[in-house]
Amino acid sequence: MNKYIQKRSGKAGLPPGTLVHIGAKPDTPARVSLVNYNETAFDSRDITDVKECLVIKEGAPVHWLNVTGISDIVLVEKLGNCLGLHPLMLEDIVNTDQRPKVEGYNGQLFIIIKALGYDDVAGSVKTEQVSIVLGSNFVISFLEKENPAVEAVLERLKQSKGRIRKAGADYLAYCLIDSIVDNYFYLLEKTGERIESLEDRLIKEPTTKLLASINDLKREMVILRRAVWPLREVINGLQRDGEELIKHETGLHLRDVYDHTVQVIDTVETFRDMLSGMIEIYHSSVSNKLNVVMKVLTVISTIFIPLTFIVGIYGMNFKFMPELDWKFGYLFVWVIMITAAAVMVSVFKKRGWF
Amino acid sequence: MNKYIQKRSGKAGLPPGTLVHIGAKPDTPARVSLVNYNETAFDSRDITDVKECLVIKEGAPVHWLNVTGISDIVLVEKLGNCLGLHPLMLEDIVNTDQRPKVEGYNGQLFIIIKALGYDDVAGSVKTEQVSIVLGSNFVISFLEKENPAVEAVLERLKQSKGRIRKAGADYLAYCLIDSIVDNYFYLLEKTGERIESLEDRLIKEPTTKLLASINDLKREMVILRRAVWPLREVINGLQRDGEELIKHETGLHLRDVYDHTVQVIDTVETFRDMLSGMIEIYHSSVSNKLNVVMKVLTVISTIFIPLTFIVGIYGMNFKFMPELDWKFGYLFVWVIMITAAAVMVSVFKKRGWF
Amino acid sequence: MNKYIQKRSGKAGLPPGTLVHIGAKPDTPARVSLVNYNETAFDSRDITDVKECLVIKEGAPVHWLNVTGISDIVLVEKLGNCLGLHPLMLEDIVNTDQRPKVEGYNGQLFIIIKALGYDDVAGSVKTEQVSIVLGSNFVISFLEKENPAVEAVLERLKQSKGRIRKAGADYLAYCLIDSIVDNYFYLLEKTGERIESLEDRLIKEPTTKLLASINDLKREMVILRRAVWPLREVINGLQRDGEELIKHETGLHLRDVYDHTVQVIDTVETFRDMLSGMIEIYHSSVSNKLNVVMKVLTVISTIFIPLTFIVGIYGMNFKFMPELDWKFGYLFVWVIMITAAAVMVSVFKKRGWF
Amino acid sequence: MNKYIQKRSGKAGLPPGTLVHIGAKPDTPARVSLVNYNETAFDSRDITDVKECLVIKEGAPVHWLNVTGISDIVLVEKLGNCLGLHPLMLEDIVNTDQRPKVEGYNGQLFIIIKALGYDDVAGSVKTEQVSIVLGSNFVISFLEKENPAVEAVLERLKQSKGRIRKAGADYLAYCLIDSIVDNYFYLLEKTGERIESLEDRLIKEPTTKLLASINDLKREMVILRRAVWPLREVINGLQRDGEELIKHETGLHLRDVYDHTVQVIDTVETFRDMLSGMIEIYHSSVSNKLNVVMKVLTVISTIFIPLTFIVGIYGMNFKFMPELDWKFGYLFVWVIMITAAAVMVSVFKKRGWF
Amino acid sequence: MNKYIQKRSGKAGLPPGTLVHIGAKPDTPARVSLVNYNETAFDSRDITDVKECLVIKEGAPVHWLNVTGISDIVLVEKLGNCLGLHPLMLEDIVNTDQRPKVEGYNGQLFIIIKALGYDDVAGSVKTEQVSIVLGSNFVISFLEKENPAVEAVLERLKQSKGRIRKAGADYLAYCLIDSIVDNYFYLLEKTGERIESLEDRLIKEPTTKLLASINDLKREMVILRRAVWPLREVINGLQRDGEELIKHETGLHLRDVYDHTVQVIDTVETFRDMLSGMIEIYHSSVSNKLNVVMKVLTVISTIFIPLTFIVGIYGMNFKFMPELDWKFGYLFVWVIMITAAAVMVSVFKKRGWF
Repeated sequence: MNKYIQKRSGKAGLPPGTLVHIGAKPDTPARVSLVNYNETAFDSRDITDVKECLVIKEGAPVHWLNVTGISDIVLVEKLGNCLGLHPLMLEDIVNTDQRPKVEGYNGQLFIIIKALGYDDVAGSVKTEQVSIVLGSNFVISFLEKENPAVEAVLERLKQSKGRIRKAGADYLAYCLIDSIVDNYFYLLEKTGERIESLEDRLIKEPTTKLLASINDLKREMVILRRAVWPLREVINGLQRDGEELIKHETGLHLRDVYDHTVQVIDTVETFRDMLSGMIEIYHSSVSNKLNVVMKVLTVISTIFIPLTFIVGIYGMNFKFMPELDWKFGYLFVWVIMITAAAVMVSVFKKRGWF
Repeated sequence: MNKYIQKRSGKAGLPPGTLVHIGAKPDTPARVSLVNYNETAFDSRDITDVKECLVIKEGAPVHWLNVTGISDIVLVEKLGNCLGLHPLMLEDIVNTDQRPKVEGYNGQLFIIIKALGYDDVAGSVKTEQVSIVLGSNFVISFLEKENPAVEAVLERLKQSKGRIRKAGADYLAYCLIDSIVDNYFYLLEKTGERIESLEDRLIKEPTTKLLASINDLKREMVILRRAVWPLREVINGLQRDGEELIKHETGLHLRDVYDHTVQVIDTVETFRDMLSGMIEIYHSSVSNKLNVVMKVLTVISTIFIPLTFIVGIYGMNFKFMPELDWKFGYLFVWVIMITAAAVMVSVFKKRGWF
Repeated sequence: MNKYIQKRSGKAGLPPGTLVHIGAKPDTPARVSLVNYNETAFDSRDITDVKECLVIKEGAPVHWLNVTGISDIVLVEKLGNCLGLHPLMLEDIVNTDQRPKVEGYNGQLFIIIKALGYDDVAGSVKTEQVSIVLGSNFVISFLEKENPAVEAVLERLKQSKGRIRKAGADYLAYCLIDSIVDNYFYLLEKTGERIESLEDRLIKEPTTKLLASINDLKREMVILRRAVWPLREVINGLQRDGEELIKHETGLHLRDVYDHTVQVIDTVETFRDMLSGMIEIYHSSVSNKLNVVMKVLTVISTIFIPLTFIVGIYGMNFKFMPELDWKFGYLFVWVIMITAAAVMVSVFKKRGWF
Repeated sequence: MNKYIQKRSGKAGLPPGTLVHIGAKPDTPARVSLVNYNETAFDSRDITDVKECLVIKEGAPVHWLNVTGISDIVLVEKLGNCLGLHPLMLEDIVNTDQRPKVEGYNGQLFIIIKALGYDDVAGSVKTEQVSIVLGSNFVISFLEKENPAVEAVLERLKQSKGRIRKAGADYLAYCLIDSIVDNYFYLLEKTGERIESLEDRLIKEPTTKLLASINDLKREMVILRRAVWPLREVINGLQRDGEELIKHETGLHLRDVYDHTVQVIDTVETFRDMLSGMIEIYHSSVSNKLNVVMKVLTVISTIFIPLTFIVGIYGMNFKFMPELDWKFGYLFVWVIMITAAAVMVSVFKKRGWF
Repeated sequence: MNKYIQKRSGKAGLPPGTLVHIGAKPDTPARVSLVNYNETAFDSRDITDVKECLVIKEGAPVHWLNVTGISDIVLVEKLGNCLGLHPLMLEDIVNTDQRPKVEGYNGQLFIIIKALGYDDVAGSVKTEQVSIVLGSNFVISFLEKENPAVEAVLERLKQSKGRIRKAGADYLAYCLIDSIVDNYFYLLEKTGERIESLEDRLIKEPTTKLLASINDLKREMVILRRAVWPLREVINGLQRDGEELIKHETGLHLRDVYDHTVQVIDTVETFRDMLSGMIEIYHSSVSNKLNVVMKVLTVISTIFIPLTFIVGIYGMNFKFMPELDWKFGYLFVWVIMITAAAVMVSVFKKRGWF
């Protein structure tokens, strides 16, 4: 399997608007739940017959249709036809390889954003696509699988915390986006910790494997960047194009999400800079370690080579070598050798080569 | 032959509008086929007399004139004169060294895009130029040679899959562009696989040849980038300038192609980043390997040099060397040497130099 | 604790507008002081009952409400409700992880900037968030802790230095911003000194620790950049959006702050360039030092190895070796060896290898 | 002489509008030729008296005044006064250090572009400045020396090839620009060839000189870039500002030149990327070569050092060394040594160190 | 003293508009000279009483008040009050750390640019700030010390060279800017020479000091860039905002200065590129030199180590070593050794290791 790019080529040659699921298949079947609420009432139930969804087209209270699992092409298509969603919208929903974007279709806003999480098993970032359709009195959300950020919003609705029950569908859409973006910070903290742990190991044992880890982290930063950069444009687009659907007060809140997005981008860029600096330190550290080894070894050789020469001299077999007949010749050679070694060691020490 | 730039200098000094074919000559002769279709009817035939093309100027059904092979200058010129295409348009059609672009000529839209493929023999990316002229009721396409993306559209027309037979010429042009862009993903998958295979070999055997392969791949990414970057502008241009020719619904589909283009650009940029990271790892891996070798060799030398010194001592010919007369002198030296070697080995091991 | 990113994940899942303090807790309790002044009068007192703040809503003289310590969520919320500040404004005030920005809320301007200081103990840059709310006749400022730049403005007000007492609330806000930005220069000077001291050590002893220091400094430059870059936009925003609140004369002064900001950015960029250059010099210096050591050691070995070979020759035990019987054989060998050594030393010296 | 920047300081302190020739002096004297043509007639002659130029101010046919050699300040000044050209225009014409640009002066368009050529003797790019003044019925061109691109246009005029004789002065100006830009491709091909030849040598013999050549080529790319980048703006400027002088049809042709310019820029950028990649490969190749040498040499040493130790052992003069008295002791040592050497060689080979 | 940033922190905490001189103190006292001129008359005298300046407010001829020396705060303040200059303007004039800029104050244009010079003693670039106030009939210029570019304009005025005496105050301001920018080219030539001299030394003796010089030069390029980049914006600003004060003809001349500025920026960028390339070559050159040394030394060792092994063999004391008793054993060993050495030398030579 190709790990750097999702398989899309299966789609080539098919007419546009053909629904082809691109992405990982989840283990559990798709689930559709419908939430109705207003300031006083709250009702939530799972739906099995697609027809029941039609209710979201009518009535004053806010409807939230939440679809978990998008690999069930047939279900998505039925839902789409039933609710009158544009085929291109459906095509984008089931293709999890989309960039975050916002688009208008006949008075509805279609928003794609990325929910990011940390996969503790694989030890890496995982990306899930969340598609949101915002109408005047309803929100339809499509998730790849259950998402804690979306669960949190549902919980808040249930418990009627904050102004969420009083406000309209636009505020619900905002809450979903805000909750997902808030989760990014968790990921950044996790990444910060991983960078720190890498930094500690960097000085101690700079292995090629560690370098590969740093590069992996850099690559994850690229994934994050791809998920977050367009988000800025998405929120700008919501504020610009969503005049009819998004109320002024929700607009103020969106400005807040915008700030968070910019903050995330800033942090990601800082992390990238830090990782580049770590690679620099890695290289310095590696060559430093080698230098120490080579210097010590070379110093040892350099001390013994002249000594070996000296003992070689008195290994010669000349008939006439006066020193050989001296009584203290042997002692004398030892003195010379120890002196020479001491001088060399002290010189090398003084120059800091040892 | 110059492999980095196509021969263009032959054109210098000729008056503008002179048709000069720039690019590789195909093996097969040029072929012109005319397709007529509407919702109910479909007719396709090859044309030998250029005059027959005149039919595309009239009538309600959609005409698609597909020219395969553009090195036949005479044919292209005849077709151009017959259909009233602007000389500069023709000049660009036969010059396969164009950047993707869109231009308006007297109510027609002239689009140049690049079809990318993977040349399994040469093991590299190959680029083909596709020129499309879009009129109110016709599409004229010029290909360098037969192209699977274009074939797929023809097939879909024949089988009347999707809404293609019901929609107009603008939708046909969109389908051609979409089909060509969809094929980019195949190329990206292929590239992803090649990167993966390079990565595997990178750690095992980091050769200079491998580095050259990485650089080749980087260069291919530049070619891709040059083909895809301007495409974004082309599709924007179509949406902006094509008001009269392109219907609203087709515009929505073009927005989709735009998204795909952005996705391709993103992936290409990611690949470039990855390849840069691989070069980094390559260098680290090479120097790591060398370091291991040099350290081991130096350690071996460093262990034997002091030992050689010791045996040198007792090779000296001094008259008075008490050790030489000891009964266990020889054994004693062996003990010293083995101890010294053991100490050195253990020290080096402890420090991780071995 | 995570040192690269402030803990924010605690906020995830809470409804927007929930006040959660993000940042370091100060040691001292929060303090609210109210300053009233006009051209002739000046009055300053600490406030314990939040109700007393209501006075700032009325009357001609300028009111300045200065809140030191924002970790007291309850106090900030009470103040906010009492003064009618927007909940999102309050949320940003207590979250010290904000980017500098300016926003309009119902005729008030809400400004966030960063006060930078040098932490002499930690030896690094510290960042504090200052939030300013500007109304027609009042300024409310929120500080993390006591800030010398804000103190200086208070002092100036007391002593009626300059035109500050004659001008309105807009001029007071300008003075606060100006005073904070002026303090940046102190930080830049400090950084300049640190760079100089690093540079001196760089040539003498290029250690991996030094490289880490340079990288730390580079990271601080990134923090500075993040604090200063958006400031430009903030001041532009003030000039653009603040038409009703900011008088023409104050606008001229803001242009001055803008210039200072650009100057700070310029200096930060220059510092970054210099630090990059220092890393370059570091690497050169390290490898240079190693080169000198290795060359000297290798030269020593290279001189003694041929000599050892020569003495080895006459250590051979052949029956027929005429030189061994020569009277001056031993002397002869010494002459040869000294000559060989001298030739080698002079050749190496001449080539600059020594 | 300063080879990286043309001597301009001689101009400092002179009043603006003073004509000072900056650039290389040509060997031949300046030459002024006047060409008159319309659809049917063509006349070309050299002019010696400046007064004769006045004819270009009047009459319907197109006049082309071509001045070859601009170091003759007096001549240029006389021509300028006679034809009423603005002094600043003249100053720019004789200063060959200008950036390509287009400017309007009293209903005339003043265009400066760079003709690029390959200097076969110096083996490098040479730049010549071409200034074109476009009026309603005349073109004045100033060349540093004879230029093949301009000659080609003259030749085409003579032979009445293409629509050049039928079109007006704007088309002539376009033809000059187009012809000069077409010549860029010749230069790019030449550069492509030089890059290829450098690449071949890169793997074989990576010398410092080769690196310098790559850097020279990179510098030439900078020169090209400086000549071509502003050209894009020039052609945009012509299309924008030249409404009165440039007809619609010529505008379409200019769009073509624009495409060529973008193509040249693309190629130059690709070449720069390739050259950077080659520097990378150069460094890898150099260190690879060294690694091979050092490894082989170190392996040889490492094999012989233990052997030398062994022979050293039996060179010792102990009284009691049983092996020395063995009958096959000598043979036994040889067996040990050959075995040790064989083991080491095979281990090193297996690990790929040899 | 801090060499990378001018001391500004003394200003922190002072009210805005307080004049604080920032920059080097000159040795000579400040000097104010007043020049009056029109087409026929010219008068220049030094002024001691500030009151005399008031004349510039009235009358038709052009007045030029030139203040040399701005560290005399009192004088500058008096002048400012007398001539009605805005306090912020005065603050900028005495702070020599300003970025080039243009600002409008009540119908006057306030221009700050940088005069660059080459300090032959320090061997580096020096920057001086020139502030120009342009009114309808007067120019006030503030210099740090005497400046040759300004002197040259004065000289031209005196000698009535060019149209300077006929034109108005706007043309005088233009002449000052033009003269200062013209002097940049002198600096660029000087820098070009320094780069050339560094390049020559680069190949011969690549020392760490040389690398530091290259980095110094790179830093100077940054200073130049900071002085020149904003100048482009300044001249654009003059053309845009100066409609009332700057006549059309002077505008044409400003376009010329703009071109020069762009040229200077281009050259600075080229120099930066070249210096980066030189650093690359430096590193290559250093490692190349080391490689040569190490290879030669290692080759010498590698030749002698096997020879030493051979002589070691015949130094062994085995009882039964047939070779030792051969008559030509000794000769035989010499033949073997010379052969071995010759083979090794020739192999190494052939592989280019020597």
